[in-house]
Amino acid sequence: MIKSDTTVAAFERLTARFPDRLTTSEAVRHQHSNTLSLIASQLPDCVIWAETTQDVVDVVEIAREFGVPVVAFGTGTSLEGHVNAPRGGICLDMSRMNAIGQTSPTDLDCTVEAGVTRRQLNQHLRATGLFFSVDPGAADATLGGMAATRASGTNTVRYGTMSENVLSLTAVMADGQVIETGCRARKSSAGYDLTRLLIGSEGTLGIITALTVRLHPVPDTIGAAVVPFQTIEAACEGALAAALTTATIARIELVDALAISAVNSHSGLALAAMPTLFIEWHTTAPRASQDATAIRDVLVRHGAKSFDWAEGIEARNRLWKARHDAFWAIRSAWPGKTPVVTDACVPVSRLAECIALTVADIEACGFIAPIVGHIGDGNFHTVPMIDLSVAAQVALVHGFVERLSMRAAAMGGTCSGEHGIGQGKMSALSHQAGRAVGVMRLIKNALDPNGILNPGKIFET
Amino acid sequence: MIKSDTTVAAFERLTARFPDRLTTSEAVRHQHSNTLSLIASQLPDCVIWAETTQDVVDVVEIAREFGVPVVAFGTGTSLEGHVNAPRGGICLDMSRMNAIGQTSPTDLDCTVEAGVTRRQLNQHLRATGLFFSVDPGAADATLGGMAATRASGTNTVRYGTMSENVLSLTAVMADGQVIETGCRARKSSAGYDLTRLLIGSEGTLGIITALTVRLHPVPDTIGAAVVPFQTIEAACEGALAAALTTATIARIELVDALAISAVNSHSGLALAAMPTLFIEWHTTAPRASQDATAIRDVLVRHGAKSFDWAEGIEARNRLWKARHDAFWAIRSAWPGKTPVVTDACVPVSRLAECIALTVADIEACGFIAPIVGHIGDGNFHTVPMIDLSVAAQVALVHGFVERLSMRAAAMGGTCSGEHGIGQGKMSALSHQAGRAVGVMRLIKNALDPNGILNPGKIFET
Repeated sequence: MIKSDTTVAAFERLTARFPDRLTTSEAVRHQHSNTLSLIASQLPDCVIWAETTQDVVDVVEIAREFGVPVVAFGTGTSLEGHVNAPRGGICLDMSRMNAIGQTSPTDLDCTVEAGVTRRQLNQHLRATGLFFSVDPGAADATLGGMAATRASGTNTVRYGTMSENVLSLTAVMADGQVIETGCRARKSSAGYDLTRLLIGSEGTLGIITALTVRLHPVPDTIGAAVVPFQTIEAACEGALAAALTTATIARIELVDALAISAVNSHSGLALAAMPTLFIEWHTTAPRASQDATAIRDVLVRHGAKSFDWAEGIEARNRLWKARHDAFWAIRSAWPGKTPVVTDACVPVSRLAECIALTVADIEACGFIAPIVGHIGDGNFHTVPMIDLSVAAQVALVHGFVERLSMRAAAMGGTCSGEHGIGQGKMSALSHQAGRAVGVMRLIKNALDPNGILNPGKIFET
Repeated sequence: MIKSDTTVAAFERLTARFPDRLTTSEAVRHQHSNTLSLIASQLPDCVIWAETTQDVVDVVEIAREFGVPVVAFGTGTSLEGHVNAPRGGICLDMSRMNAIGQTSPTDLDCTVEAGVTRRQLNQHLRATGLFFSVDPGAADATLGGMAATRASGTNTVRYGTMSENVLSLTAVMADGQVIETGCRARKSSAGYDLTRLLIGSEGTLGIITALTVRLHPVPDTIGAAVVPFQTIEAACEGALAAALTTATIARIELVDALAISAVNSHSGLALAAMPTLFIEWHTTAPRASQDATAIRDVLVRHGAKSFDWAEGIEARNRLWKARHDAFWAIRSAWPGKTPVVTDACVPVSRLAECIALTVADIEACGFIAPIVGHIGDGNFHTVPMIDLSVAAQVALVHGFVERLSMRAAAMGGTCSGEHGIGQGKMSALSHQAGRAVGVMRLIKNALDPNGILNPGKIFET
């Protein structure tokens, strides 16, 4: 609910400007707060749907005039409380800004509005022979949101994160100015890299309204395999070795035995309940078999129990759907428990060790906690399943996540491989980045002196 | 020479701190100013050799106390006046900070001090089967300098620029604090991307003292070919088509007919004096011939006059040395004239058109101006050869460079693909980036409120 006089005045201006696109409905405000993690929901005072960059400018200018927070919102699939409104204010829903501009098959790029989702874009590209590579899996997030959190997911090992797949952004800054952060050339050394500064800034420095993204040619031929191992360590070592073959590995995903069981139930599969690699490689028809052999040989040398090569597109899609549905499979496998998705990323040489220590921690905690991971990048997620009504379990999981973050940082890694910081990882970031957080704060204060853009995220402001 | 009282006081403190490593010799100061472009040299008041990060901290702290500029210096090979000292002050020579730390063959990374040059690193890596990919060609620049200017060069089409090849930086900020900008994990979404913010900031936000860089496995087999075309347009179209084959192209370089003639004289070659592509692809022994055929077929379809495939490592090295020596070949081909190296990068779909308009401009100016380029990325350099003693020629070339920058920007490209902004491209950046320059300035003022770090570069401060 709108509270202070200032907010009431701001609200009047906003209502006059957006008579049909502003709501204070509690249900809608709840939908527009954090709903996917342990972090408690903190509702905005109102939700406004932006339809144009000018709408965003107008919202930001009114917000600035009255000192009211603005939280940009895509689809709300972030996991660290990014869309919460701890100081109330405006949730700016970007989902209607979903126009897709021109695709250049020569330049391999496309300009889209920030509310376009990755599935929508790939659907749109279907006839072009091109695709957008960044694939966070379960979530059909908006590209603006994915840029704001520096998302990645499967495919990163081959094609990179959002950082490598955005050429330029259009953003509305806290002073209401609209900037273009880059250009359409494939590289540029013209001044500070504002594109990369905004990518991962979680809506705290500017609101992304459009993106020019890189596209990739759909591979000629895609090979995929499901490969079980006796231990997670063996699977990690196999994955590292496979990455060094001359085959072009696009994804190497780990699904542990618990998660495999959940996936089997959820997707009607009968995979061996062992730590399993899901591997995809991009190749050409004449090489496909040769690549498969090279990958199989190296994995068998590292203890693979079998090598189930999915040849057809249907078998492959079923396999990847199973991997991508792992989160939903896990969620439904233990009714009454709530999944808490963690995120850590370490140098790949430390991955097996980090997972082993984390498994020991899980056992000590007594959690059920399946593990999945983009292990080609050293990134893994544990998913403790807890009973939210038991305070001791909630406390236990908080401690577990904190230790996981510290463990990753101590290994030269990061408390967040792809989920961002939001509210959930602020203390972990502070521990990990040290004085660099002070530099981030200086930048924040310089670009948003009134603190209106998504306040209370990444670091204390 | 040291001038003001403040500077004298600073100088006393610096001399006491660095009795054996500070000089005011005019010859040394001249060497440490801009020497490779039309931009007039502007000498620092003194040169200090840093040997440790603490040295850098001490210099920055004294500089801050007295408000004296600090210009970090690697090997002085930048082309836009980056190392000039328009307000005097300290040139901080980083070349002695050239220790190479541990290489991880599993993580494919290595931590080095900022004064390590790319040749030194690759020499060091020779026995590991790994290499550092960023290769600006003629210059054996330091990695710190290459990061500061977001350098790239050949190989970028396959392996990316400095932006994609640095995991983390150690930097001394203007307040004397030492920060680590990232970590050793292959990806991270933990807060603002200070690594990418410092890459390309040209020493204006912080002084890079160490870098963790990505390494790549030396390719199993390397193929290379020299391919002449009737016209530059045909060569550009051929290059674009070759990039879309399934061969893994690592470099596609254009050398125009004038530059080929210069290269022939300089390197004792007998290449046809026509616009020529130098192509390199990374492959495996069993695929090498198949890849060569695929590339040749597509180039022949686009009008290649011949396809000279260099099979042995010696033939290949000779060929690439010729390409890399193109700048020196051009420089010596027209005695008495001085080369002015330009830099523009456009979306690849506009490259042929941009080069054609630029050739017309060259003809209108009456210059001799060979063209070379990393055309797989849409990046090309013209090299007008001018008589520096003729003021009209100097004015003409300034106008030419300005039009080239405007032309590239109008095509969605950039005035600087890889040389940075420095002093030379400030007005071009202002035209191209518009209001984004205001955002850069806010960041600069926030991180360096006294304006001591490389002032007068990128934008007016």
